[in-house]
Amino acid sequence: MSRPARELAVQASMAFDERVASHRMRLPTDFPLYKGGALRDGVVAYETWGRLSAKRDNAILLFTGLSASAHAAASPADPTPGWWEAMIGPGRALDTDKWFVICVNSLGGCFGSTGPASIDPAVGRVYGTRFPELAVEDIAAAGHELVRGLGIVQLDTIVGASLGGMTVLAYAALFPRSTRRVVSISGSAAARPFAIAMRSLQREAITSDPDWLAGDYSAHRRPAAGMRMARKLGTITYRSAEEWQQRFARAPRQAVKPGGAPNDLLRAPFGAGFAIEDYLEAQAQKFSRTFDPNCYLYLSRAMDRFDLAAHRGSFAAALEPAGIEHALVIGVSTDILFTPAEQREVAQAFERAGARTRLLILDSLEGHDAFLVDIAQFEVAIGEFLAADRRLGATG
Amino acid sequence: MSRPARELAVQASMAFDERVASHRMRLPTDFPLYKGGALRDGVVAYETWGRLSAKRDNAILLFTGLSASAHAAASPADPTPGWWEAMIGPGRALDTDKWFVICVNSLGGCFGSTGPASIDPAVGRVYGTRFPELAVEDIAAAGHELVRGLGIVQLDTIVGASLGGMTVLAYAALFPRSTRRVVSISGSAAARPFAIAMRSLQREAITSDPDWLAGDYSAHRRPAAGMRMARKLGTITYRSAEEWQQRFARAPRQAVKPGGAPNDLLRAPFGAGFAIEDYLEAQAQKFSRTFDPNCYLYLSRAMDRFDLAAHRGSFAAALEPAGIEHALVIGVSTDILFTPAEQREVAQAFERAGARTRLLILDSLEGHDAFLVDIAQFEVAIGEFLAADRRLGATG
Repeated sequence: MSRPARELAVQASMAFDERVASHRMRLPTDFPLYKGGALRDGVVAYETWGRLSAKRDNAILLFTGLSASAHAAASPADPTPGWWEAMIGPGRALDTDKWFVICVNSLGGCFGSTGPASIDPAVGRVYGTRFPELAVEDIAAAGHELVRGLGIVQLDTIVGASLGGMTVLAYAALFPRSTRRVVSISGSAAARPFAIAMRSLQREAITSDPDWLAGDYSAHRRPAAGMRMARKLGTITYRSAEEWQQRFARAPRQAVKPGGAPNDLLRAPFGAGFAIEDYLEAQAQKFSRTFDPNCYLYLSRAMDRFDLAAHRGSFAAALEPAGIEHALVIGVSTDILFTPAEQREVAQAFERAGARTRLLILDSLEGHDAFLVDIAQFEVAIGEFLAADRRLGATG
Repeated sequence: MSRPARELAVQASMAFDERVASHRMRLPTDFPLYKGGALRDGVVAYETWGRLSAKRDNAILLFTGLSASAHAAASPADPTPGWWEAMIGPGRALDTDKWFVICVNSLGGCFGSTGPASIDPAVGRVYGTRFPELAVEDIAAAGHELVRGLGIVQLDTIVGASLGGMTVLAYAALFPRSTRRVVSISGSAAARPFAIAMRSLQREAITSDPDWLAGDYSAHRRPAAGMRMARKLGTITYRSAEEWQQRFARAPRQAVKPGGAPNDLLRAPFGAGFAIEDYLEAQAQKFSRTFDPNCYLYLSRAMDRFDLAAHRGSFAAALEPAGIEHALVIGVSTDILFTPAEQREVAQAFERAGARTRLLILDSLEGHDAFLVDIAQFEVAIGEFLAADRRLGATG
């Protein structure tokens, strides 16, 4: 079903490869970018689950949030659990007995697809900030190349959450009739100033770190303090204040860490001494070890700059040529980054563009992260949406 | 009305004195601190408006937010407008034809009262992080010394917003029957993890700045990048997402600054190009020029650690000895730092402690900053509360 000639074995061409996907595909030698210029000899990393039908009409393409890899679920090639393990598999919402599911690592990321942490073939060293400007449209276009490379003319459904939700919209705007259905989860047609402010501050934390060195940091000395702050701010805004009140309230920091070592954070200058600080630090340390700072900067800025209305003048006009039949738009009541108001905008745009659209604002404490944590509600909503298709209902 | 022997002329003993208050009073030579130790030869800066009555029973004490000076309104000594100019004066909510209004610069701050930026008399150089731990209770106690120094046995009303709202509660817990009434604005009896997370991250931005030098920065090279980030995060959380959507939406950065100079922020690494970024930067630059980083760290941590229930076991028990007759508790619907739920807690504590209490959650887009911006609603509420007093009604 794939084209072996275009597929690469996993190789060590990445400067940073904490978790690469199990498959990669070459992009065209000169892959044009939305903001100008082209990417030479790029690759896109992906994983798949289930089997592509003979008619090649049962494919679901999944775009991820900013920090996720293409490893959305366990597979024979990589049996470790993925980031959406509960959602993908036989009998699950993305039922692999029925669907061929493809998850793509975002172009510009650092888990297998070409990005700022990759080697620039023109000069033989890491791109860094010499990587050309990345747009959400480029992530969509790289996904589209992959889909075409797999011999699929029309997807059944594109699914995406967060940045992936934006990518779904870019995909629909760029590629007419490329999918019958979409599921947009906590995405946005154009970010609002609160989210832009938060993300711009996250980027400032990284670029203000003296170890950033205008993007030319070494693999051995990366801007870890800036990355930790960026991730803490992310973590704060990905959840809800009410969830933390219930989980942490004013519980104190533990003197001893889970492993038994003394909690050295107790000596952090001007720490206040609360468990919430330990939680943020643990999240931040994990992230700063696994994600490339320049990739973060490129992807984060792309999210701020994405504006669906740049395609044909309005959100609805942008989506019209896509000819989407059914859209499911899901948001979360407590999401402060990708707000319920933005979900209503997205749903309205699909509706006006002619899609039969269902808008669902889930009541969850988990905020923007709900799709990763409060899985049960998403399972039901997405499972029902996918199963409700009459065309496949006969054969499914 | 004041005691000249205890009052000092404004003098240049501060390492940092962008805006000192027009009056200062010495604290007792050894001023004991709530968390231990004592402060030697401290001073507290303040300003006053109106006249203290012969019976000394018309005094209103005003505690400020983290970053404000005691210059709440213009006066003959300093005719520049203050931070609450519209609220204080003849015929205004804090009517100086009737009331003697005292505003105190928080102990630990950098606008005249002793704090980490002051000279440690024991060694002849700036305290820096050798300043002892500061608690909200210490800010209250310094205010109480000032009140006693002015010969006032019982205040009519204590008013405070934000950190000042916390200080009002600490004052009531520490000093029985020291005031008849209180106005608590957007305060908290104990901060919640969302606010603690935000403030701990602000402090981390400062202490991660290489120019912080463990608090021993010079006046010529302060941790400005860290301070700017801390203030940006503050500014983001002091307002509401909805206000920014209405004010800025996705307006682009201006190529030219208001003064005519080119906007050099356009070249900031990984800026996204939106007006909201210029706004945050302008706020941040102003703040980083006028506020001392160590003072910020001490005051911010004190807010996190304040817990009214540490006094006698519960919020209500803490307030009982105060014998408050009337309490007005004001919060703002869109305040994400000092939430409406926290205002309800404060009001409930006053009610249970025996005060006739009015809780008012104002519908405002301005978030935590509403008391500084959306003045009209506060004028009415506070003006009515103060005027509704029968005792003074006969003479006022």
